[in-house]
Amino acid sequence: MRGRLTIALDAMGGDTAPQMVIRGANIARQRYPQVDFLMFGREGEITAVMAKMKRLRDVTTVVHTEDVVRSDDKPASALRTGRNSSMRLAINAVQDGRAMGVVSAGNTGALMAMSKFVMKTLPGIDRPAIATFFPTLRGESVMLDLGANVHCDAGNLVDFAVLGNAFARTVLNIPEPTYGLLNVGSEEIKGHEALHEASAILKNAALPGHFVGFIEGDDIGRGTVDVIVTDGFTGNIALKTAEGTAKLINELVRRTFRSSIVAGFGYLLARPALRKLRKRVDPRRYNGAVFLGLNGIAVKSHGGTDAYGFANAIGVAVDLVKQDFIDQSQVVLHSLAQEDRKTEATAF
Amino acid sequence: MRGRLTIALDAMGGDTAPQMVIRGANIARQRYPQVDFLMFGREGEITAVMAKMKRLRDVTTVVHTEDVVRSDDKPASALRTGRNSSMRLAINAVQDGRAMGVVSAGNTGALMAMSKFVMKTLPGIDRPAIATFFPTLRGESVMLDLGANVHCDAGNLVDFAVLGNAFARTVLNIPEPTYGLLNVGSEEIKGHEALHEASAILKNAALPGHFVGFIEGDDIGRGTVDVIVTDGFTGNIALKTAEGTAKLINELVRRTFRSSIVAGFGYLLARPALRKLRKRVDPRRYNGAVFLGLNGIAVKSHGGTDAYGFANAIGVAVDLVKQDFIDQSQVVLHSLAQEDRKTEATAF
Repeated sequence: MRGRLTIALDAMGGDTAPQMVIRGANIARQRYPQVDFLMFGREGEITAVMAKMKRLRDVTTVVHTEDVVRSDDKPASALRTGRNSSMRLAINAVQDGRAMGVVSAGNTGALMAMSKFVMKTLPGIDRPAIATFFPTLRGESVMLDLGANVHCDAGNLVDFAVLGNAFARTVLNIPEPTYGLLNVGSEEIKGHEALHEASAILKNAALPGHFVGFIEGDDIGRGTVDVIVTDGFTGNIALKTAEGTAKLINELVRRTFRSSIVAGFGYLLARPALRKLRKRVDPRRYNGAVFLGLNGIAVKSHGGTDAYGFANAIGVAVDLVKQDFIDQSQVVLHSLAQEDRKTEATAF
Repeated sequence: MRGRLTIALDAMGGDTAPQMVIRGANIARQRYPQVDFLMFGREGEITAVMAKMKRLRDVTTVVHTEDVVRSDDKPASALRTGRNSSMRLAINAVQDGRAMGVVSAGNTGALMAMSKFVMKTLPGIDRPAIATFFPTLRGESVMLDLGANVHCDAGNLVDFAVLGNAFARTVLNIPEPTYGLLNVGSEEIKGHEALHEASAILKNAALPGHFVGFIEGDDIGRGTVDVIVTDGFTGNIALKTAEGTAKLINELVRRTFRSSIVAGFGYLLARPALRKLRKRVDPRRYNGAVFLGLNGIAVKSHGGTDAYGFANAIGVAVDLVKQDFIDQSQVVLHSLAQEDRKTEATAF
């Protein structure tokens, strides 16, 4: 798509909002000169932070509201009582066409509940999923669901495969993505029933790309597949375990270089290369989880990120808008639905 | 315990058995001079490998059997048709008192099914779990279950907490272990029912140590708790995800050092320190998963390990024997059962 595009921002979401959100928007403004911002939150606080950011002010419209969703609000109560919250108004802006996507670093559950309520899901999709991409040995992979749905049946897993597939094709630019279901591999354990049902369905589905069947936990870092499909409980634990292990190894490497003077010299020499590596695996670089399956673009930033991380979350939303992600997903879903009808017609 | 002790070995289990098993036993023989081996398998193949290992022959009794459990045998069929297999005879040796523990690198499911059938479980324990320990930022932690039980109820999780606790106290020498239930942390997702029930029970249980409640995936590498309790599906995926991530980071660091000549010089200087680190996180060092909850000591070695890794699995079995692990577990289980009776008596 060409021309200007507008992103709605929940200025009040995140541990250090609104500073972090506004500074993040200011970084994103330089990267994406075609973007305008529609910023929702407490005007006084926002304009105070923006006082010295003239160029950001030029592309930003601030919409005042006092109400804020708190990080410990339950999704249902946020949905009921947060109708005038900065988060809700930002979502509404996407629904009524004033913005093409929304980014918030606030309460994940509330953002999901409100987005689903306001934007609805894509035709044929029962429950949206949270997805993110991360570095692997082969490049980058996407995993979903990361926590929106603790209990998933086979139908949900198949939906996630379809959505992850569309994401890999449009955002990661992989025309024929490989995808697999995360399972346990030992002989004695068969995995859950839902996984076996989903596997049987996906083997016969006419999805673009290649279904490799079951994959295991160590296939995530290896980059065995482009799309890792799993339920929200398992996905959340796998992602956080990977983050924790990466931190562990980084810290052990750091301690190793400090363990002797000679190793310290070695570190000095290797520092530029190690900095490049740190940049590649920087979690802020992969900040911005996408709510897939909604009939609109909603991106969740980590609440504890900084301006650089928040700018990356804005970047994810901009990418999705530019790639016409919603339309592209609908094309895949529509062709699958046609396929289903054909199969049913043949069956009778 | 003092004096000599005997470990039964399934000589035919593992990708490169019997060579790997026998060479592993030869390494373990040097580390543990008080250990005798009772080795089950094809005598011709075994004696051929042992031809030049006089000292190993001096402490080893070979018991011939033709039968072998294959890596793709289903547990139930191995149990039915494998009565004369090297694996089964090695387990029998523990049950009838000729050995004090068994080590196999063979089919995990078959080893679990046979061990449970032959040795039975400890009083009060319904299902055994697979446990292993691994490095963290704070030292070492133990996690269970790693794959024996895909579906777990609250009672199983409580049993795992008790067993992991006994393991941390006797094998890791932590008098008051901390332990937690692996769960997802976001507000919108509450985790499975079984986790909430288990948490309520553990809060009131009179276990030694300190129950911290729920922990998340990133707490594993951080070493937040000494004992991580989870179901076999989640535990298997978390462990393998951590292994895969460690491999990914190691490989990226390796590539980084090769990316420029200066970084290469840095690597040369840091090499001794990096070698020490590699040794610390070497998966072979943590080889040897314990079947906790059995009324006997059974240790599963990774099938793809080498002699060094197998020697470490033997070391885990030797440790468990020396620490009187089975008796110690029974003491904890017995005192908990007393506690239960007292609670019941008070309740009426």
